Amino acid sequence: MPYMVWGQNVGYITTAVSQSVSQGNGEPHTHCAMSTEVKPGMSLCPLGMEPPPERELLCIFGTGDLGRSLGQRLLQTGYRVVYGSRRPHSCGPLPPGAQVMSHTEAAQLAAVVIVCVHREHYDFMEEVAPQLKGKVLVDVSNNSKKGLYPESNAEFLQSLIPAASVVKAFNTVSAWSLQNGPSDAHRQVFLCGDKAEAKQKVRELATRLGLSVLDRGSLSAAREVEDFPLQLFPEWRLPLCIATGLTGFFFFYLLIRDIIYAYVEQDKDISFRIMVSLANKVFPIVSLIMLSLCYLPGVMAAILQLYRGTKYRRFPDWLDHWMLCRKQLGLLALGFAFLHVLYTLLIPIRYYVRYKIREYTVLQIRENKTEVFDTTTAWYTDSYFSVGILGFALYILLGITSLPSVSNALSWREFSFVQSKLGHLTLLLCTLHTYLYGWNRFLNPSTYKWWTPPGYMLCLVVPSVVLVLKLLMVLPCVDRSLGRIRQGWERTGPEGEGTKPLMA
Amino acid sequence: MPYMVWGQNVGYITTAVSQSVSQGNGEPHTHCAMSTEVKPGMSLCPLGMEPPPERELLCIFGTGDLGRSLGQRLLQTGYRVVYGSRRPHSCGPLPPGAQVMSHTEAAQLAAVVIVCVHREHYDFMEEVAPQLKGKVLVDVSNNSKKGLYPESNAEFLQSLIPAASVVKAFNTVSAWSLQNGPSDAHRQVFLCGDKAEAKQKVRELATRLGLSVLDRGSLSAAREVEDFPLQLFPEWRLPLCIATGLTGFFFFYLLIRDIIYAYVEQDKDISFRIMVSLANKVFPIVSLIMLSLCYLPGVMAAILQLYRGTKYRRFPDWLDHWMLCRKQLGLLALGFAFLHVLYTLLIPIRYYVRYKIREYTVLQIRENKTEVFDTTTAWYTDSYFSVGILGFALYILLGITSLPSVSNALSWREFSFVQSKLGHLTLLLCTLHTYLYGWNRFLNPSTYKWWTPPGYMLCLVVPSVVLVLKLLMVLPCVDRSLGRIRQGWERTGPEGEGTKPLMA
Amino acid sequence: MPYMVWGQNVGYITTAVSQSVSQGNGEPHTHCAMSTEVKPGMSLCPLGMEPPPERELLCIFGTGDLGRSLGQRLLQTGYRVVYGSRRPHSCGPLPPGAQVMSHTEAAQLAAVVIVCVHREHYDFMEEVAPQLKGKVLVDVSNNSKKGLYPESNAEFLQSLIPAASVVKAFNTVSAWSLQNGPSDAHRQVFLCGDKAEAKQKVRELATRLGLSVLDRGSLSAAREVEDFPLQLFPEWRLPLCIATGLTGFFFFYLLIRDIIYAYVEQDKDISFRIMVSLANKVFPIVSLIMLSLCYLPGVMAAILQLYRGTKYRRFPDWLDHWMLCRKQLGLLALGFAFLHVLYTLLIPIRYYVRYKIREYTVLQIRENKTEVFDTTTAWYTDSYFSVGILGFALYILLGITSLPSVSNALSWREFSFVQSKLGHLTLLLCTLHTYLYGWNRFLNPSTYKWWTPPGYMLCLVVPSVVLVLKLLMVLPCVDRSLGRIRQGWERTGPEGEGTKPLMA
Repeated sequence: MPYMVWGQNVGYITTAVSQSVSQGNGEPHTHCAMSTEVKPGMSLCPLGMEPPPERELLCIFGTGDLGRSLGQRLLQTGYRVVYGSRRPHSCGPLPPGAQVMSHTEAAQLAAVVIVCVHREHYDFMEEVAPQLKGKVLVDVSNNSKKGLYPESNAEFLQSLIPAASVVKAFNTVSAWSLQNGPSDAHRQVFLCGDKAEAKQKVRELATRLGLSVLDRGSLSAAREVEDFPLQLFPEWRLPLCIATGLTGFFFFYLLIRDIIYAYVEQDKDISFRIMVSLANKVFPIVSLIMLSLCYLPGVMAAILQLYRGTKYRRFPDWLDHWMLCRKQLGLLALGFAFLHVLYTLLIPIRYYVRYKIREYTVLQIRENKTEVFDTTTAWYTDSYFSVGILGFALYILLGITSLPSVSNALSWREFSFVQSKLGHLTLLLCTLHTYLYGWNRFLNPSTYKWWTPPGYMLCLVVPSVVLVLKLLMVLPCVDRSLGRIRQGWERTGPEGEGTKPLMA
Repeated sequence: MPYMVWGQNVGYITTAVSQSVSQGNGEPHTHCAMSTEVKPGMSLCPLGMEPPPERELLCIFGTGDLGRSLGQRLLQTGYRVVYGSRRPHSCGPLPPGAQVMSHTEAAQLAAVVIVCVHREHYDFMEEVAPQLKGKVLVDVSNNSKKGLYPESNAEFLQSLIPAASVVKAFNTVSAWSLQNGPSDAHRQVFLCGDKAEAKQKVRELATRLGLSVLDRGSLSAAREVEDFPLQLFPEWRLPLCIATGLTGFFFFYLLIRDIIYAYVEQDKDISFRIMVSLANKVFPIVSLIMLSLCYLPGVMAAILQLYRGTKYRRFPDWLDHWMLCRKQLGLLALGFAFLHVLYTLLIPIRYYVRYKIREYTVLQIRENKTEVFDTTTAWYTDSYFSVGILGFALYILLGITSLPSVSNALSWREFSFVQSKLGHLTLLLCTLHTYLYGWNRFLNPSTYKWWTPPGYMLCLVVPSVVLVLKLLMVLPCVDRSLGRIRQGWERTGPEGEGTKPLMA
Repeated sequence: MPYMVWGQNVGYITTAVSQSVSQGNGEPHTHCAMSTEVKPGMSLCPLGMEPPPERELLCIFGTGDLGRSLGQRLLQTGYRVVYGSRRPHSCGPLPPGAQVMSHTEAAQLAAVVIVCVHREHYDFMEEVAPQLKGKVLVDVSNNSKKGLYPESNAEFLQSLIPAASVVKAFNTVSAWSLQNGPSDAHRQVFLCGDKAEAKQKVRELATRLGLSVLDRGSLSAAREVEDFPLQLFPEWRLPLCIATGLTGFFFFYLLIRDIIYAYVEQDKDISFRIMVSLANKVFPIVSLIMLSLCYLPGVMAAILQLYRGTKYRRFPDWLDHWMLCRKQLGLLALGFAFLHVLYTLLIPIRYYVRYKIREYTVLQIRENKTEVFDTTTAWYTDSYFSVGILGFALYILLGITSLPSVSNALSWREFSFVQSKLGHLTLLLCTLHTYLYGWNRFLNPSTYKWWTPPGYMLCLVVPSVVLVLKLLMVLPCVDRSLGRIRQGWERTGPEGEGTKPLMA
């Protein structure tokens, strides 16, 4: 979809009809052949090229972008294509080699009819119903919104033409990716329908077009399939809510503790700190909490399994839901960590920081003080930075292995090693980084302004709990029990007769 | 292609013949079986393993790297392989299980002959012509340069052996990826040919080898297919030219305004600033302009559609071309932004900056001045940094979603949300960042050295225009009209009878 | 595998049985149908849905996670599924629509039996042997460790039931990815078996499930296939060893030269420098050496080919092995470079650095010295930074093009351009960066503490050699000879009669 990337879809596949698939070599081969109308009896050969007799004829209803792109792709792949249109004489440019006629005429000619028409216009289909009897009808439609209609478009089409076999397909494939071949994107076709032979026909069709087919079962699954292109990050919703909630909470908490406290108690206006200093406190806090929230459900699941003595009982829904969004939690945490790193590296360029350093130097000279270098401070600040950088590097590594193409290239054991072992190591390093940041301020009463603990102390609670629990889990005795349970062993009550099922 | 990655192709698949596909487990299974010559009448069983009678026999002409790799892969997949060679007695090591004989003898045995020979050596084919009658000839050749010959290799082969069915295939697949299975890379096979049955045979062959097949039509498409492996970033050419042009222009513009101006007017040599300061002015300017050039064509297309009242008229070629390279424009802009971030974060380590800070502090003490902290300056500089960082983070996000494997995993609506909504937000943040950088210098006459505006002012023109136009586009009334047009509605002249086509 | 990502595999597919594939829309369609036991004679229709008569029946032995997930997927794809279980009455929840019965009864009904049972429990198979005669047995098992058994699980199964055709398949596919469709990950199925028809059946099955199949040959390859999921970065082992070795060596070398030298000779404790300063010396050194080790074997191979006058002789094993891990060497080098950048950008925030800067300013004022700005120093430090940043940006570019999905989208020529041309340019920039860092210290005797050269000098040896050799290789005369050899030309001894083979 290069036409869309880094910009806005302008809703029109400009090069759709005029170019053969020319993969950006800059010189599109323009065919100017305007399709000529053909009578049903006429030979359907495109001019100048004798089609092999076995080339199958397909019918496409609708001459919009998708209809035209699909037609062009089918012609390229060696099919013959006839369009059915309401206005066969004025339907605009069509791919060279295709014919156009009325719906009724076109439907008679082919065994498979691809309906590239909006659901709102399905009413005309009833007139064509007699010609569609026994044919395979491919519904490619999508809706502009979820829940517009009580039933899926495909089921609605089936109810209009009960004598045809409706198959839902191609709705996740865009006109653009059809144009540019499957190497571009979105080559996954979801298929559903009630008739196996009809599905098989469409499956072959899609495979020939270089698309990858996944059968989603009967036509009742069409609703789900039609909702795919309308999804807007469903699995990101909960993690985003958590991130927003945490960010909001800590923002106001630190606003009160830092800015408002200074204003009220010391009568100083340090509100400018909101933009960088406060942000750079909120981001690492949220990042660390969210990272620990990635690893908390795993530990909780382990405890539940140990307690229950079996892995065959379902987890509570909330835990299930939580575990399913761990990847998103982790990636958001990485995003916050990235912001933290940028904000931190920016510190020495800030006007405020430069002013403070200058002020301190000037003060030192005016008061003629000699500053003593403190090796301990140097040790702990440097350790704090070093641990933070190593933690961030591992964080990035976790993010990279979450990329679909990278995780696909890993074996199960490798993936598990990176995401579990290295993941817990990252959490350990980041938690250590925060502890080192606190250093000796934990016991200093002045840290607790208005009797509240600073943000970094609050954010240490969850990761510390996760790390302690994880430490308990890897104790040899616990680890052995857990391992047995995960291999399928069950502790069956007080009789204690563990049985080993056949396959974990 | 691990053999090539991070290094140079040494033109030889060292392990090609000697190892079974051993995916890096460090212990290649070396077979030392030298292939023995077989007479046409002989049984073609590899020693020690009785082949199932239904195993199909394929013939490969040529015993180079590709021929040997293909043969090995075919043998592994369960085919029998016989090589045709000019020198069957001295053709070097071949995959164990394969036979080698003269071209004529080999061609007689198989229905499919894969020609792994350079085009320059096709002349020998004419001698074998009688044996090739009615057979499927697979042309896998590539040229070392574009436009070497008037016709494609496959068409040339067809003209040499008119009685055979030539199919172009496998030319995009390397010997190396054949060796290592399709999980490595480049599993896409482009197919073209004039005979449907011949193509079907090759399609089945390729599918069995675990490759993914895309039909590109008749043999006349072979030229295009042969050019694929020779492409060198065709779609990057225009964006790279724009980037180079902008960089060059702004480099010299700022060189004159900053370095030469200082030399001429103030007699100061600040040429050392070229390396970091000047670069760090040019990079963000080029980045912002290129980012706005990503979003300008979308706005222009929308205006054109509104003006024309239809989406069914083709855009001018230059607009089309421009829209097709938006992804590349955006990625280059991201590259420049990345350089800008690195150069900026580096500032406080620079010798010049440290010198200046020290000088300023010393001056302050010697003149016994007290610097007053300016909260407004703190606010606007911090905002400027903060907006810049957030813009950069979104920039990175756009870049990540441009990765093929990530964009493939997104639904159409998700992709559109990221690239359009978040894209415009990024542009907004980056433009704001630049305005905040200018701050109150816009009205200061001393900014305009030699009556020229500074670089950041020049670079604000395009993004400001894009943002204002985009703002107009999302006004409810304009948005509604545009929405209707993109759904396929057409304003048909002064009569105003809008007609809704069947499918957008 | 979202269930695993960023966390730990809890060994249980919670939603496996209860949900249809609901791709994270938050509302799983829960089917609570407990499977009812069926007698062999009974009709096997799932309630409420009449199956088309042609739906094929498959048998699955074992009702563990994989068995259940596979069954659910098969049912969705339109197969009928019957489970064979030791305890058909108490085997837990099964996918709705599936039946469960004893092994013997289930085996009788289907032509294909998928054995989802641990190898340790294969003994029961012998009892079922009579029913399995002539059937296709699919072995999906994995072991928990390498080398547990003398023969592969599949071969062991074949030896237990010689009358069946055992096919190894699906062992690289997880229960989880079966649940969530192939868009998630790990859709690659490796197939091996001795009977072609049996393999063809399993191949069709896997293709129908939306998986991608790669034939690995006869059943003797099963061992290798069974080892795939157990691999733990085999190709990373050598590069990781090299990285660890180099890091260790340079850490101790610099520890002695910097920290211990200062302690012994000057009696200063600067041990705190280990955390940041020392690390930031070791990381760039290791990074540069490893980057040059990426490009060294290519140059060595070229020299070997020039010396031998042919590309058809195999490289020594060590060179072969080295060339195969260049990608990993490069990515590790990038990791070290990334750490170097972070550590460097952090410098001005460090307590030690701020202390030193303050101390120097104070000294300057107290001694009333005037510091003179040195333009030469400004030039060379800025050049040094600028070259480093550009080198790092190219480094990142190399890393991005190593991502599987990106390298797949490149043509061979593009990939080769990036990895060879840009790769050598990166090496050149990074080497130059190091030379500029050294600047005039190369000739300064005080640099050589205890007569040892500093780390950056040591690390310049390999990259300098690589660059000089590479420079020799691109001399026109050498380049021409090498080009001819790589195209297949051979220098055949003193007679000098070069022969051109058919295909390079």
